[in-house]
Amino acid sequence: MDPYTIHTKESGSLLPVRDVHVNISARSSTPGKMKGRKARWSVKPSDMSNRTFNPIRAIVDSMKVKPNPNKAMISLSIGDPTVFGNLPTDPEVTQAMKDALDSGKYNGYAPSIGYLSSREEIASYYHCAKAPLEAKDVILTSGCSEAIELCLAVLVNPGQNILVPRPGFSLYRTLAESLGIEVKLYNLLEIDLKQMESLIDEKTACLIINNPSNPCGSVFSKSHLQKILAVAARQCVPIVADEIYGDMVFSDCKYKPLATLSTDVPILSCGGLAKRWLVPGWRLGWILIHDRRDIFGNEIRDGLVKLTQRILGPCTIVQGALKSILRRTPQEFYHNTLSFLKANADLCYETLSSVPGLQPVCPSGAMYLMVGIEIEHFPEFEDDVEFTERLIAEQSVHCLPGKCFEYPNFFRVVITVPEVMMLEACSRIQEFCEQHYHCAEGSQEECDK
Amino acid sequence: MDPYTIHTKESGSLLPVRDVHVNISARSSTPGKMKGRKARWSVKPSDMSNRTFNPIRAIVDSMKVKPNPNKAMISLSIGDPTVFGNLPTDPEVTQAMKDALDSGKYNGYAPSIGYLSSREEIASYYHCAKAPLEAKDVILTSGCSEAIELCLAVLVNPGQNILVPRPGFSLYRTLAESLGIEVKLYNLLEIDLKQMESLIDEKTACLIINNPSNPCGSVFSKSHLQKILAVAARQCVPIVADEIYGDMVFSDCKYKPLATLSTDVPILSCGGLAKRWLVPGWRLGWILIHDRRDIFGNEIRDGLVKLTQRILGPCTIVQGALKSILRRTPQEFYHNTLSFLKANADLCYETLSSVPGLQPVCPSGAMYLMVGIEIEHFPEFEDDVEFTERLIAEQSVHCLPGKCFEYPNFFRVVITVPEVMMLEACSRIQEFCEQHYHCAEGSQEECDK
Repeated sequence: MDPYTIHTKESGSLLPVRDVHVNISARSSTPGKMKGRKARWSVKPSDMSNRTFNPIRAIVDSMKVKPNPNKAMISLSIGDPTVFGNLPTDPEVTQAMKDALDSGKYNGYAPSIGYLSSREEIASYYHCAKAPLEAKDVILTSGCSEAIELCLAVLVNPGQNILVPRPGFSLYRTLAESLGIEVKLYNLLEIDLKQMESLIDEKTACLIINNPSNPCGSVFSKSHLQKILAVAARQCVPIVADEIYGDMVFSDCKYKPLATLSTDVPILSCGGLAKRWLVPGWRLGWILIHDRRDIFGNEIRDGLVKLTQRILGPCTIVQGALKSILRRTPQEFYHNTLSFLKANADLCYETLSSVPGLQPVCPSGAMYLMVGIEIEHFPEFEDDVEFTERLIAEQSVHCLPGKCFEYPNFFRVVITVPEVMMLEACSRIQEFCEQHYHCAEGSQEECDK
Repeated sequence: MDPYTIHTKESGSLLPVRDVHVNISARSSTPGKMKGRKARWSVKPSDMSNRTFNPIRAIVDSMKVKPNPNKAMISLSIGDPTVFGNLPTDPEVTQAMKDALDSGKYNGYAPSIGYLSSREEIASYYHCAKAPLEAKDVILTSGCSEAIELCLAVLVNPGQNILVPRPGFSLYRTLAESLGIEVKLYNLLEIDLKQMESLIDEKTACLIINNPSNPCGSVFSKSHLQKILAVAARQCVPIVADEIYGDMVFSDCKYKPLATLSTDVPILSCGGLAKRWLVPGWRLGWILIHDRRDIFGNEIRDGLVKLTQRILGPCTIVQGALKSILRRTPQEFYHNTLSFLKANADLCYETLSSVPGLQPVCPSGAMYLMVGIEIEHFPEFEDDVEFTERLIAEQSVHCLPGKCFEYPNFFRVVITVPEVMMLEACSRIQEFCEQHYHCAEGSQEECDK
């Protein structure tokens, strides 16, 4: 028998192989053989890929606007501190990578959760009496994005839900919906823990807490964090803490890792080198497992380990460099970054505070500043998306609309640009608003001021 | 109203927040408030993490055997060419990384599918007249593992199935079952395309073809590849080609990329730096999209792009180094690696061919050699797992049992070890077999030979 003959049920004992997974049509290159049940090509993307949706990409890509050709483009859109060249990483960080390369010791496969020695370094760096850590509590990941993905993948089943801040980083929704998880939004700006708690139901598998936060640059107070922990404890819902901006707070403020404030709520804290060490492209992140009451137990730990075996962890050269990066980066590097960000934040906040129709939110950390738009005073624009589009078209300044963060009538400013560009951007935003500001009906006196 | 009061349905308009997602028990720290519907902690790993299963880890970790303390351990188990230090990567590869670091240009986020310039380099490196490639056909990934994961995630829905080689690399099953995809095994050693075709049903979403193959080191002939393509074309099933060992074939053999042999079957070819450039830890892989009949179309391409946005691609330093790695690595580096592997393969094959009870399979490429065990001649051992366990206990030689590759009564030898170690390992395997070999019943004359 020709091994390539197609067998039908009628032809004998072989399984039928004709009803292939694709739709059936009349088109076929071998009509004689196919006996009227012809296959044709029809390859469709999976439900998972259809569900995977990056709102920033979708919103930004659908903006069909060109910048003003007479003004140089200033992009304040992407949270990448490296794009302007004014915030290089520390030379010790680069040297650590070269040393790792020269050693020849970090070319092979690491354990999928990361080298033990690298996990020991992270554990000892973040260990403190109120939130002790050992190497076994650390999992290295391909960036903080994979850290968050693994946390959701191990804690949440499709059909369950998670609580996510609004406004908030869009990746939480992207990852959750990719995994078939429902997203419920709790209010971040008007802090309202009652509303947060009211969202929790029998299908709620975790809360995501992002502190310091993107896009607001908020830094939660100790008492606010304690209240969040009280909700989690009362409702028995574990927390995924996105602390990628941990320690990136301005001098008048204090950052508290969430796990240092609780002994009973199990917490997966996600971090990485991206923001503090200014190397987001290197894709080195981590999960710190805080579970002093043994609620996650071995099951969640084993689950995380199993999930890391799918793509086998982050680049080993960066893993090999971790020890020196953590030990040798001078304090003044961190200090200088924060001083720079604080100065830009102040400059931006002060300038935009005086602009008619804008309500900037003063940040205490991270790399962003959210600005409220009194949209009723800009009747030409339907919403924040149109506002930011026109800002590009007229002033060549690109900010992300609040819609990207589920927060309409705001826009986000990235404050990592050089000071002169920050000044120029603010003055263009001011000009733009002055040109388009209209008094709201019945409030003429306000405009006369 | 106290914002932390727990509200029940009875208390008003708020949603009930008491039936939390965890089991209900009598234990509670706030019995007064909970009104008999008390929550307790019960955090369980997701179905996905429960399904994610690495058979090599499971089989190897459950081997509770200690090596012979009088013999130094020789590990021939993990497919990592770097562990013995005898196969360093080329100095040009390391230099390319240092140059990328020094440039300061590769610290920020790349597009999630990789830098355009890096994708152009891969496209031009693998472009040929019979399988043309442009940058748009290339997606960079965090290692070949993520390449395969993305291919399955975009092509296959949970509940569908894929065809996977037996014996074969266990990651296919790990990734598929993690995604809820059924695995059907087609026979690789006794090549039987009729059996392969008979497995295809209406739920078959793709075939995985691994050439050159792990664990056998087989290199498929042009005519065999054409026959596989004929099955795929007839059944309208796309192919995921794991070609991570592409070009790693011994001099008497020719490697044909699958896509060069077909103009009509859509193929996602997966590769990476891991094996050929001897840097598996660096986690730089890629997907080459071959779709000359536009069967995948924009939908599958867009689906892949969306899926990359979950973890945002591989380390940017390695991406930045790609151009120099591909252009400057000298031909003699590739040649020397292959000469070394071929010499070790010959040495191992020849030695083990003369060992009673063993049937080595001669490899034509990759870094492995499979050895059949005539298990009826080793009545002390139940199976290949026990055979390899006892080989560790008595001879301190660690090979993976065929069970790890869904192929019982074989074991796999990694041939990247230094020659002297390869010799020593083979001689210990010989001693082990001679000690345990028994004539099968009714074949005494065979033993007398």
